[in-house]
Amino acid sequence: MKNITIQEIEDMDRFKKTNFINSLSGFKSVTLIGTISEKGIPNLAIFSNIVHIGADPVYIGFINRPKEAALDTITNIESTGIFTMNHIKKEFVDRAHQTSAKYPNDQSEFEKVGLTPAYKKGILAPFVGESNVQYALKLADIIPIKFNGTFLVIGSLLDVFIDPVLMQEDGHLALDQAGSLTSLGIYNYYETNFIAKFPYAKP
Amino acid sequence: MKNITIQEIEDMDRFKKTNFINSLSGFKSVTLIGTISEKGIPNLAIFSNIVHIGADPVYIGFINRPKEAALDTITNIESTGIFTMNHIKKEFVDRAHQTSAKYPNDQSEFEKVGLTPAYKKGILAPFVGESNVQYALKLADIIPIKFNGTFLVIGSLLDVFIDPVLMQEDGHLALDQAGSLTSLGIYNYYETNFIAKFPYAKP
Repeated sequence: MKNITIQEIEDMDRFKKTNFINSLSGFKSVTLIGTISEKGIPNLAIFSNIVHIGADPVYIGFINRPKEAALDTITNIESTGIFTMNHIKKEFVDRAHQTSAKYPNDQSEFEKVGLTPAYKKGILAPFVGESNVQYALKLADIIPIKFNGTFLVIGSLLDVFIDPVLMQEDGHLALDQAGSLTSLGIYNYYETNFIAKFPYAKP
Repeated sequence: MKNITIQEIEDMDRFKKTNFINSLSGFKSVTLIGTISEKGIPNLAIFSNIVHIGADPVYIGFINRPKEAALDTITNIESTGIFTMNHIKKEFVDRAHQTSAKYPNDQSEFEKVGLTPAYKKGILAPFVGESNVQYALKLADIIPIKFNGTFLVIGSLLDVFIDPVLMQEDGHLALDQAGSLTSLGIYNYYETNFIAKFPYAKP
């Protein structure tokens, strides 16, 4: 095992350090977040730090970078109170990644990258038509993380749309078979292979 | 696409709902967190909601369930201010999962499940000797999430120990080749296959 000290990490160039630290924390549940601005312009952005907050009631959260770096999604959520999450499949991962480009906020990433904004009754924010796991969340809280200007954005679940073949008897979603991807670092994407399932652990 | 309404989700039995919601938010960076109690008993627990908070300076966080459900790790971090994160390989995923059993807090999960507590100079908390990606964090903040009693625990990076073959020129860690796993739902584990890498996106 090689020891990489915090000093060696601090001394890495910015790009290498970002890549290293983003990999260190492991595979992420990369997701496209759909929102709409007050002016009605649909926005789509790729996020990788999605967390399960609770199942009863259902809360799901994500980390938003500082507003200087990533303004549109959080601003739209603040003004409309609603957002969607949409899983990414291999077939459109290139377009999903391209949403990370900094387009002016009067342009829609949907149009720029070639993904389809899909609207559903009673939900203001757009879903990604190409995605086979789509869900909508209502803003519950935005918690600022004081150290570095990031935010934990938490939503309560409103509605889910999935390809029915994914749903298993025990509630589990077969995302490996669905081709939902996972990401690592800042630009690497992976498929998954199921290897093991274990029962509820008892001493 | 099948619509599953929030009412249908609320009506699922508790186990099915937990499984469904945990899968919905996607693949997670499952990790073993090592801590030590004030009395010196090493603790090891599996966590799946790990987030990258920032690279400069380096902050990594995780979601801890309510203290009624998951007391030992957060208590040990509060009292000692230090914890380790350790990636999980296929070879010991069964033992890693078994740390989720509720052992009395005078017993060490390391001993109960058969993993090796590894101590390094200047770091009070134990690492997992079998892991090929190990890092230590110093407690930076514990943010309570008011809705449901969970916590976002944030640490600042202290030190990293990795198998040197994993490190790539651009700082990326080849965790797919390392056999680091990802999890989905409450008891399913997956290997990964690299499928694509894209450059920094520009409009």
